[in-house]
Amino acid sequence: MGSELAHLKSPNPNFADDVRRSFAQQPIMNLLGASLALVEPGVVEIALPYRADLAQHHGYLHAGAVTAIADSACGYAAYTLMPAGSDVLSVEFKVNLLRPAQGEMFVARAEVIKAGRTLTVVSADVFALAGYTKTLVATMQGTMIRIVRASSSADHS
Amino acid sequence: MGSELAHLKSPNPNFADDVRRSFAQQPIMNLLGASLALVEPGVVEIALPYRADLAQHHGYLHAGAVTAIADSACGYAAYTLMPAGSDVLSVEFKVNLLRPAQGEMFVARAEVIKAGRTLTVVSADVFALAGYTKTLVATMQGTMIRIVRASSSADHS
Amino acid sequence: MGSELAHLKSPNPNFADDVRRSFAQQPIMNLLGASLALVEPGVVEIALPYRADLAQHHGYLHAGAVTAIADSACGYAAYTLMPAGSDVLSVEFKVNLLRPAQGEMFVARAEVIKAGRTLTVVSADVFALAGYTKTLVATMQGTMIRIVRASSSADHS
Amino acid sequence: MGSELAHLKSPNPNFADDVRRSFAQQPIMNLLGASLALVEPGVVEIALPYRADLAQHHGYLHAGAVTAIADSACGYAAYTLMPAGSDVLSVEFKVNLLRPAQGEMFVARAEVIKAGRTLTVVSADVFALAGYTKTLVATMQGTMIRIVRASSSADHS
Repeated sequence: MGSELAHLKSPNPNFADDVRRSFAQQPIMNLLGASLALVEPGVVEIALPYRADLAQHHGYLHAGAVTAIADSACGYAAYTLMPAGSDVLSVEFKVNLLRPAQGEMFVARAEVIKAGRTLTVVSADVFALAGYTKTLVATMQGTMIRIVRASSSADHS
Repeated sequence: MGSELAHLKSPNPNFADDVRRSFAQQPIMNLLGASLALVEPGVVEIALPYRADLAQHHGYLHAGAVTAIADSACGYAAYTLMPAGSDVLSVEFKVNLLRPAQGEMFVARAEVIKAGRTLTVVSADVFALAGYTKTLVATMQGTMIRIVRASSSADHS
Repeated sequence: MGSELAHLKSPNPNFADDVRRSFAQQPIMNLLGASLALVEPGVVEIALPYRADLAQHHGYLHAGAVTAIADSACGYAAYTLMPAGSDVLSVEFKVNLLRPAQGEMFVARAEVIKAGRTLTVVSADVFALAGYTKTLVATMQGTMIRIVRASSSADHS
Repeated sequence: MGSELAHLKSPNPNFADDVRRSFAQQPIMNLLGASLALVEPGVVEIALPYRADLAQHHGYLHAGAVTAIADSACGYAAYTLMPAGSDVLSVEFKVNLLRPAQGEMFVARAEVIKAGRTLTVVSADVFALAGYTKTLVATMQGTMIRIVRASSSADHS
C-alpha cells in the first residue's frame, strides 16, 4: 500500500550516479535488455521490453524475468537512501503474480516503505504496457540489507 | 522443512514426458542455459551452470536467475502430481537469499508440500556447487495453481 | 503499493452485514478485543486497543496479534467483493514487521489489490496510534480463496 | 525443506533457561494457553491446546493463533544459536495455510535454516493432532534479527 516516504532526500549526494554505475555492472540486466527508467530518492523504475526469449511456455514473460527487474528495482530504491560507500543485497522477497505477464513493455516501480540503518523494506509493482493500457501484473514486498562496502565479503548477514 | 509426500504416484502416466516437453517450450530456460536434472512425482530439479552474464554487480548469480530456476522447478514439481490435461501457473512465491550465490553450478530442487485439487504448495532449495562443496544459497516457498488446459485463457484466478 | 480498485461496487448487496455477522462469529477477535472499524467494497479496517496480555516479552504487541487483525482484515476485504453465498479462507500471507508495535491502539487496514473469481490478492498496513501520532508498524501481502459455501468442507484447495 | 544444521551447539551455555525465562515473559502465550514443548540448539517446539475462543468463524484455529506460535517458535529457535546477551526480533515471515486447522492440539516446530551474525532464517511447520493422527496445517519461512541487548531500544533495524 502507500509508501510513507515522500519528498525524501538521499544522504548520498551522488546516489543517482552510483545507482547508474552499479546497474551498468549487472550483466544480467544487459542480457535481459532491461534499463533504468527512473532514479529518485526512495523510488526506482526499471523497464524491460518484451522479447520472445524471455517467455515461459505460454509466451508470457517468465516469473524469473518479472522478479529480476522487481528485485533490482527494490535493491536500488533502498540504495538511494543509504550513505555513500554502502552496498546493498537482497535478504528476501515475496511476489504475487496477479495476471499473465502479457505486453510489449514491462516496468517495475519500487518504493521504499521503511528505511533503516541496516534493513530497508521495499515494495514494487510490475506493470505490463500494451498499446495505451497499463496493467498491474505482479507485486513484490521485500527486505534489503545495507553492507558497508569494505566488508562486503562472503557473508551478508 | 520436510515434505510429507514420499513414494508418490502421479495421476498422469506421462508426467515426465509432459514436463520435459513443457520445459523445452520455455525460451527463458534456454536463454539462461538451464536444464532439467530430475523429474519424479512431486520432485523436480533444474540445473544452471554459472555464466558471467547471469551475474549481479558482485559477480554472484542474480536473484532473478536464482528465482527463475526455483520457480520453474516448483511449477513442474506441482505439475507432476496433476492429472493429464492440466496446466500450471505460479500464484506467488517467497524467496530467502541465504548466502551469495557463488559457484560453478546451481541446482534448484523443488518438493511438493501439499497437493490440492486447485492449489499446490511447494518448497525449493537452491544449492551452489563448487568443487566438492554444496552450499544452500536460497530457499523458496510458493503456491501453484492448476488450470484445466481448455480454459487456460487470460485470467488465471 | 497503491490498490488499483477505487470506487468499487460489491456484487453482494448485503456485504457489510455479512462481514459484520461473520466477524461476530470469530471468537478470537472477541478474545483479543478487536472490532470492525470500516467495511467498504474492497477495504476493511479492524481496530485493536493495546492490552498488556497481548504483548511479547518487550511489552510490544505480539506479532501473532498484529497478524491476526491484518489477516482478518484481508479476508474480509476480499469477502466484500465476492458474490453472496461465498466463504473466504486465507491461502497465504507475508508480513514485514517494520517497527516495534508500540501504541495505545492498532488499526489494520486491508485493501484488495486484485479480485479474481477464485483467488483475491490483498495488502494490509497495520498502524500504531499513540496520542496524535500514527506509525506504520507492519505490512502484509496475502492471498485469499473464495469457497462456495455449500462445499466449504474440509479441503479448501 | 531440510535444515542443514544438525548436531548443533549453542554459543550460549544457558540457552534453554534463557528461552524458558523469555517465553514466560510473553503474556500472549499465556493468554492463548501455549507452552514450550522442546528447546534444543536450532530447534524449538511450542504446543497449543485447542480452545473454542481461539477459533475463526468455522471453528478452526484462527490463522493469527497459528502464526503466533509459529513466529514465537521461529524466534526462539534463532535465539538458541545466539550468544548470551542477545535479543531477537522478527523481521518478516511468510505463512502458507495448507489445511483447516482442526484438531485437539497444535504443535509449531521451528528449525533454523541459516544462522548468521545479524540475521537468522528459520522455517516452522504447524501440525494438528487429533486422536492418533498428525496433520501438517501450515508452514512458515521467516527471518529473525539479533539485537545486542543493551541497544534493544526502539528501532530494531
